[in-house]
Amino acid sequence: MEILYQIKEGCKYRDKLSKKTLRSTIYTMNNILIIGAGRSATALIKYILEQATKNNWFITVADANPELAKSKVGDHPQARAIWLDVSKPNDRKDIISRVDIVVSLLPAHMHLLVARDCIKLKKHLVTASYVSREMYRLGDEARDASLIFMGEMGLDPGIDHMSAMQKIDEIKAKGGNITAFRSYAGGLIAPESDDNPWHYKFTWNPRNVVLAGQGTAQYLENGKHKYIPYARLFKKYHLVDVPAVGVYEAYANRDSLLYRSVYGLDGIPNILRATLRHQGFCAAWNALIKIGLTDGSYPIHDCDKLTYHEWMDAYMESGNGSVKERVANFLNVSSDSDVMEKLEWLGLFRKKKIKIKQATPALILENLLLDKWQLSPEDKDMIIMQHEFEYELKDKKYQLTSSMTLKGENAVDTGMAKLVGLPLGIFVKLMVEGKISTTGVNIPVMREVYEPVLKELEEYGVVFKEYLKEIE
Amino acid sequence: MEILYQIKEGCKYRDKLSKKTLRSTIYTMNNILIIGAGRSATALIKYILEQATKNNWFITVADANPELAKSKVGDHPQARAIWLDVSKPNDRKDIISRVDIVVSLLPAHMHLLVARDCIKLKKHLVTASYVSREMYRLGDEARDASLIFMGEMGLDPGIDHMSAMQKIDEIKAKGGNITAFRSYAGGLIAPESDDNPWHYKFTWNPRNVVLAGQGTAQYLENGKHKYIPYARLFKKYHLVDVPAVGVYEAYANRDSLLYRSVYGLDGIPNILRATLRHQGFCAAWNALIKIGLTDGSYPIHDCDKLTYHEWMDAYMESGNGSVKERVANFLNVSSDSDVMEKLEWLGLFRKKKIKIKQATPALILENLLLDKWQLSPEDKDMIIMQHEFEYELKDKKYQLTSSMTLKGENAVDTGMAKLVGLPLGIFVKLMVEGKISTTGVNIPVMREVYEPVLKELEEYGVVFKEYLKEIE
Repeated sequence: MEILYQIKEGCKYRDKLSKKTLRSTIYTMNNILIIGAGRSATALIKYILEQATKNNWFITVADANPELAKSKVGDHPQARAIWLDVSKPNDRKDIISRVDIVVSLLPAHMHLLVARDCIKLKKHLVTASYVSREMYRLGDEARDASLIFMGEMGLDPGIDHMSAMQKIDEIKAKGGNITAFRSYAGGLIAPESDDNPWHYKFTWNPRNVVLAGQGTAQYLENGKHKYIPYARLFKKYHLVDVPAVGVYEAYANRDSLLYRSVYGLDGIPNILRATLRHQGFCAAWNALIKIGLTDGSYPIHDCDKLTYHEWMDAYMESGNGSVKERVANFLNVSSDSDVMEKLEWLGLFRKKKIKIKQATPALILENLLLDKWQLSPEDKDMIIMQHEFEYELKDKKYQLTSSMTLKGENAVDTGMAKLVGLPLGIFVKLMVEGKISTTGVNIPVMREVYEPVLKELEEYGVVFKEYLKEIE
Repeated sequence: MEILYQIKEGCKYRDKLSKKTLRSTIYTMNNILIIGAGRSATALIKYILEQATKNNWFITVADANPELAKSKVGDHPQARAIWLDVSKPNDRKDIISRVDIVVSLLPAHMHLLVARDCIKLKKHLVTASYVSREMYRLGDEARDASLIFMGEMGLDPGIDHMSAMQKIDEIKAKGGNITAFRSYAGGLIAPESDDNPWHYKFTWNPRNVVLAGQGTAQYLENGKHKYIPYARLFKKYHLVDVPAVGVYEAYANRDSLLYRSVYGLDGIPNILRATLRHQGFCAAWNALIKIGLTDGSYPIHDCDKLTYHEWMDAYMESGNGSVKERVANFLNVSSDSDVMEKLEWLGLFRKKKIKIKQATPALILENLLLDKWQLSPEDKDMIIMQHEFEYELKDKKYQLTSSMTLKGENAVDTGMAKLVGLPLGIFVKLMVEGKISTTGVNIPVMREVYEPVLKELEEYGVVFKEYLKEIE
C-alpha cells in the first residue's frame, strides 16, 4: 500500500514539475554541507573536495565522530570537519543555516529531520536513499520555495534510474514500443578476491542482505501480476547472462512495479527488477531461510549460552543422526552437497558459543556472516548493473541489453562507495553550476539530470555496453 | 519479547496475591453489566439471567446494536438491554458507574478502555480474552483498590488453565515430579455434521483460523528449546489419540512456553501446547500456506477483477499445463490427491470473480472460506481438550491423559459459545457470593477459582475423563 502510494505521489509531483530555473540564486551556491562521514561518504567527499579546489567551494563535513570527519577532510584549505549530533535540533539547524546545499548520508529514517530544516531554512537537499512517503509529502513546500530535493541519487537507487531512463527515452524517441523491461543489479565480490564457497562478501549493509526479500515479490509477466512469497523466492531464481562477465543467478526484488509509472512505462506487460548473485548462492541462502535463520521477529532463548550446533539442533526434529545429517535430510540434499558445504563453512555446526544475548535468528546470522563475509583489506568488490529491454519498432522486435560492470580498488575504495558517492557529487556540481531546473522532491529520471551525470560517470569507468539483437 | 514479559509480570502479580477478601462489599454486588451481546455472549447471558432470577441480581446487557442485546435479554424482569458505543467515554463511564461487576466480551484490544474505567470507578472486571501486557500493568492499581480483574476466563484460554492446574496441583500434592506437559485443544465439527472434504467448519473467529500459526512456534523437548517456523508448522504436525473419539493431527501453538511459570512448571523439560485438526487438514492447509494464500501483509492488484483461477495463476510460474496441474506440480502431489481435492472443493480453480477490492491474500481466502466452511443451522460443533502429563512418583513413571469432549446443539448454541460463556458466568456467581479473594489482574490458575468452576461445569457436560498408565 505504502509503495503504491509512493509511486502515485512520485508521478504527481513529476507531472507538476516546476520549470522555474534557479539561475537567480546560483551566485552564492558554493557552500556545501555533507552530513555523515562513514564508509559510504569517502568517494563523495573526495570528489567534492576536488571540485572545491577547482571552483572555490567551501565544504563542511559533519559527523557524530569528528575524528572520522577530520580523517576524510584532511588539511584541505576550503573544508572543515565538525561534530554534529543530528538528534539535536538547534545544532542541526545552526549548521544547515550556514550552507547552500545539504548532502545527507544519514540512515534513511533520519533524512526527514534534515529535510524539514531544509524547508524552513530554504536549503537544497540531496540524498542517496529511497524517498519515503513522508519525504514526498514535502514536495509542494519544496517547490514553492524553489528548492531542489533530490533523493535516490546513488547507485541503486540512482544509477539504475538514470541509465534505464536514458535507454527508455531513446527507444521512445525513435518510435519504439517497449514490451519488456528487466533490470538487474548486484553488489558482488570480484573474481580475483573470490575465495569462499559462497562467492560472496559484504560490500554494503549486512542487515539488508540478511533480510533481503522478506515479504512477497511482485512483477509483471505478459500483462499479468505475478507473486513470489519469500519462502520460495530464492528457489525461483533464474539465470542471467551478463555479456563478457558470466552467468549469474537473479532473484526478484519485492518492488518490480515500483517505478513503472515514474519511468513512463504504465502499459508495459513485462517488468522485473532483480538482484544478482553468484551461481550456487540462492540454493544455499534458501536453505538458511528454510531452516528459519533469517527471521528477525522473535528472540532465541538463552542464545548467549548456546553453541551454533545447539542452535541448529533447536530447528530440527529430534532423532537419529548428527545435527548436520538431520539438517541435510531436512533440506533434502546430501551431506556433501554444495549447499551443506556452504552451511558448514559458515560454522553452523561448530560447537562454538554464539555469545549474543536475546538475539533474533537474523541477528545471530548477521553476526556470524559479518565475520565470515568480511572484505580483506585488498579485496575488490564488483558492481554489475544490467537492463534488458524488448521493444517493437517498424514491425520488428528487438532485444537491447545494456550492461555495466565496475570493480573497486580495495576494501575502502569500493566500487559500491564510488558509485554511491559520485552521482551525489556530480549532481551537487550541476546544482552549483545552475544546470538543474527541477524543483520539489524528485528522483533522477529527468534528462537534465541523467544526461550530464551519466556522461561524467563515464570518466570514472561507469560505461554501459550495449548489445542489440533482433528477436523472434 | 512481549510474551516473555507477560509471563514474568503474570508471575509477579500472582506471587503477590492479596489475601484480603471482599466480604465487606458483597452485599451490594448483584448489579452486573455485560458488554457485547454477539454470538459468544448467548450462553453467558442465558446463565446469568437464570442466576438473576434465583438470586435477585440485576443485569444490563449493552451492545452497539440494542436490538441484538434486546433479543438476548427478552422480557426478563431483572434485565435490560441498552445501546452502548464503547468508544464514547462518557456513555461508557456512566453505564459502568451504575453496576458492580463488568463482563467485557469486546474485541481484545478494547478491554483496556473498560479496564481503565473500572479502576477509576472501582468496579470488578471479567473477560475471556488473553491478558495483554498493558492489562497486567493495571495489576497494582486493581489490587490496591481490592478489585478483581480476571482475564482468560473462557474456554481456551480459560478451561485449559483450570483443568491443567487442577491436575498439576494434584500430582504435586501427592509428591509427583512432572516431566512433561502437553496440552491440546480443537474447535472442530462433530462427526455427524462433517460433510466436506476438509472435515472442518468455522465455529469461531475465521480471521484467527486463517492467520493461525504465523510467526515461529516454540516448545520444549528434553530440556531444549525447539523452534518451528510457520513455513513448516503444518507439515510438522503429529498425531494425537483422543481416547474414545479418534486420532487427530496436532500442530504446535506459537506460545507453548507462555504459561510455564504461571502453571508452576518452571523446571519442566517438556512442554507443548498444540491445536487439533481432523486428519488430512494440515497437509491441505500447508498447501495454502505454500502457495501464499494466508499472507495478510500486501494487497493483490485489481483483485476485484480477477477470478480465483487467475489468482492461482499469479502464484505459479508460466508454463505448460492447466493452472490446476501446475499447482499440483508445484505442491509435488498428484492432481487427484486428497490435497488437490480439498483445494478444488474450495473453488480455487473456478473462473468465478473474487469481487473484493484491494484485499490481501488472507482476506480473499477468509471470504472464500466463510462461504465454504459456514455452519448449517443444524450443524453441531465439537470441542476437544486433552492434557497429557508424564510424572515420576516413588521411582515409577506415569502417563496421565485427561480428556474432555463436548458437542454443541446447533449453529447458534455451539459448544464453543457454551464453553466460553459458562466459565464467565460461573465466575461472576462466585464473585457475587464472595467466594473469590484473589484481587488484581489474574488468570484462573488458583484453586479457589478452578475448583468450584470446574465442579459446576460438570453439570453442563464438561467432564474430563482420565487415563493413567505406568510407562517405561
